Amino acid sequence: MNAAAMTPDQARAAAERVMARCDELAALSETPDALTRVYLSPEHRRANALTGDWMREAGMSVHQDSVGNICGRYEGATPDAPALLLGSHLDTVRDAGRYDGMLGVLTAIETVRHLHRQNARLPLAIEVVGFGDEEGTRFGITLLGSRAIAGTWPEGWLDQKDGQGIHLAGAMSEFGLDPQRVADAARPAGDIAAYLELHIEQGPCLEQADLALGVVTAINGARRLNCTFTGQAGHAGTVPMSHRRDALAGAAEWMTEIERTPRHAGSDLVATVGSLQCKPGAVNVIPGQARLTLDIRGPQEQPLEALLDDLLARAHAIAERRDLTFDADEFYRIAATACDAGLQQQLASAVTAVQGSAPHLPSGAGHDAIAMAEHWPVGMLFVRCKGGISHHPAESATTDDVAQAIQAYARAVANVATQTSRPPQPL
Amino acid sequence: MNAAAMTPDQARAAAERVMARCDELAALSETPDALTRVYLSPEHRRANALTGDWMREAGMSVHQDSVGNICGRYEGATPDAPALLLGSHLDTVRDAGRYDGMLGVLTAIETVRHLHRQNARLPLAIEVVGFGDEEGTRFGITLLGSRAIAGTWPEGWLDQKDGQGIHLAGAMSEFGLDPQRVADAARPAGDIAAYLELHIEQGPCLEQADLALGVVTAINGARRLNCTFTGQAGHAGTVPMSHRRDALAGAAEWMTEIERTPRHAGSDLVATVGSLQCKPGAVNVIPGQARLTLDIRGPQEQPLEALLDDLLARAHAIAERRDLTFDADEFYRIAATACDAGLQQQLASAVTAVQGSAPHLPSGAGHDAIAMAEHWPVGMLFVRCKGGISHHPAESATTDDVAQAIQAYARAVANVATQTSRPPQPL
Repeated sequence: MNAAAMTPDQARAAAERVMARCDELAALSETPDALTRVYLSPEHRRANALTGDWMREAGMSVHQDSVGNICGRYEGATPDAPALLLGSHLDTVRDAGRYDGMLGVLTAIETVRHLHRQNARLPLAIEVVGFGDEEGTRFGITLLGSRAIAGTWPEGWLDQKDGQGIHLAGAMSEFGLDPQRVADAARPAGDIAAYLELHIEQGPCLEQADLALGVVTAINGARRLNCTFTGQAGHAGTVPMSHRRDALAGAAEWMTEIERTPRHAGSDLVATVGSLQCKPGAVNVIPGQARLTLDIRGPQEQPLEALLDDLLARAHAIAERRDLTFDADEFYRIAATACDAGLQQQLASAVTAVQGSAPHLPSGAGHDAIAMAEHWPVGMLFVRCKGGISHHPAESATTDDVAQAIQAYARAVANVATQTSRPPQPL
Repeated sequence: MNAAAMTPDQARAAAERVMARCDELAALSETPDALTRVYLSPEHRRANALTGDWMREAGMSVHQDSVGNICGRYEGATPDAPALLLGSHLDTVRDAGRYDGMLGVLTAIETVRHLHRQNARLPLAIEVVGFGDEEGTRFGITLLGSRAIAGTWPEGWLDQKDGQGIHLAGAMSEFGLDPQRVADAARPAGDIAAYLELHIEQGPCLEQADLALGVVTAINGARRLNCTFTGQAGHAGTVPMSHRRDALAGAAEWMTEIERTPRHAGSDLVATVGSLQCKPGAVNVIPGQARLTLDIRGPQEQPLEALLDDLLARAHAIAERRDLTFDADEFYRIAATACDAGLQQQLASAVTAVQGSAPHLPSGAGHDAIAMAEHWPVGMLFVRCKGGISHHPAESATTDDVAQAIQAYARAVANVATQTSRPPQPL
């Protein structure tokens, strides 16, 4: 039995600790009756302090980096060895669940705690990071924590304002950070051998497969657009059907195609209209304008881009036929991120050892692994969540599933940290 | 040449007066930069005073009735003769045009003024009414003025509140009216022989026919419903297309059928979705709920009701197939109102005399004539408006068209008041 192999009882005890700590973190909220914990808030500070304590108790040295990520390090067999970095985020959306992000940080701490209890040292150091911002709830820009570690904060982020008009730079100062030292958080490529992240699935696939764990193949790329059909408002009673330039009717026709097209295109593509407003918006007035959002995602770039082109062409054709105008403004684009094949294999082997088989699935949601993948190989382990529900207080994972997850994670971590002998290579 | 025949110069002068008075009334607004004049407001009081002056100047005796309608009477050849009642409304929607309603009152005054200038007395008296509320802008209940004259105010209207929480009864007292005396406004059926109303078309049909005037065949019946599709909100990235219960996608499919079905059904039916909201309404969340309004109209009851049944059946079928629920709540229903065949003939004859032909068309919008038709034969004359635009500051009619309208209206009024020898018959 290798150092990382856990007995079922050890895994169960670790899972119970993780569930209790998820509850403890869920109490650190800006509102008492709904979990909301945003970047650089007093609750962020308290979550970092608590998580730092848990890291220390697990045998790690702890520091908070220059953008507010809480970081722990468990040395390897030789000092200053490159690290296998395990992480996820400690911030939440508004009215959030208690597992999205936090589960990945707390299970990572358990894998280190287990090594520490065994006095096991591996060829790689193990580091754990609790990213301060992944969701982008406060400043509307996402992956702040992991992009700081990857050294890819864009120019201008310090000037971003929150809903109260507070600049990110000011919020950092208020938190006790120096906004001039953001770059200090960036890690040299050679410091880190690989990045692993455990996360709830946030979708229904594992539940439908009746399995607790799955290995992520890729994180979907995404495009988001604000789209507008413009026609001519008119009286709902006096303008014959044949004379209308109804913007909402045009949008409705397009929405039926948005729903149908990805199914035909295959390749795990999804397309969603999540928001729609029409103007003037009165029961007795033909809408002169319909504004809607389009969100499309897929694990591979080429089919995703082809879907976008196809949908926009269809929108323009609908607009032309109906004497409407159509405009689309892409405001968010992220490329698909492939998970490292070797890490997928290590994770699959550990998952198979625990649950007998290892389903592979793409991640529909974005994760810190996207930012980390710019420099390092990444792998992700998914844990089943109830009903696929996430970003909602009803978000739920079971202690049994978390116990299996910790068993598999600890096994994978030990194997990766032992077998990753090649020097880390910047991608 | 009969007493009512106007020379083109007389009609032109009358039309110029009407256009100037429309401008004068448009200045009586609760907001300086957008015309809004609601029932029982200070602007309503000033509009009544001004209109009363114009009625007196045209030879009428004037009084304000117990609900705030301004009423003028020009006696017939014999005292206390039944009256041909001409009317329309003086209230407006918010950010309104200046012709919807007011044009009918002011042109009616011109027909009387012309008779008065000729010292002509007809077998019927001519009365003109400026209804205090047709649009329902303030209290959300429509045809208040004409329903008071018809004696059909429902129980409970006095308790209706405006946006500031003021009861209708209190607003009446504030205006100087006694809410206990609403019934005094009701006219005995025998007092009125018929009701005529001139109005802008509020639609594009006359403009497309390149004609200034048209005779209304019927006022469309209408149904309005609040409808809701309910499914399951979910993550736009993680829920595969095949597992979605997307409420907005269901609504979109239904909207394409709402647009298509009336065209196939024919019978001048129209159907409109004017308003749509979805929840949660975020770019990256599958909508769990879509609420939309349905407004359908048609000049005949049976095809209208069949359309409603058809559309609701389609909504339920869509919901069932998609594992959604569908609910519909009808909050407004008004039966189609046929215009009196004899009055249509008189109006058509007058219109033909003026413009060479007389197109017949249904009214897509509601009018005071709906309430009057509960007791009296009604007829309506439509005047072309630019682009079919109404309920908007861009509402526009030309002086030339209004001159033709006054010529035709005066001719029709004289003919009806001369030839309607039969005693008025309650319908």
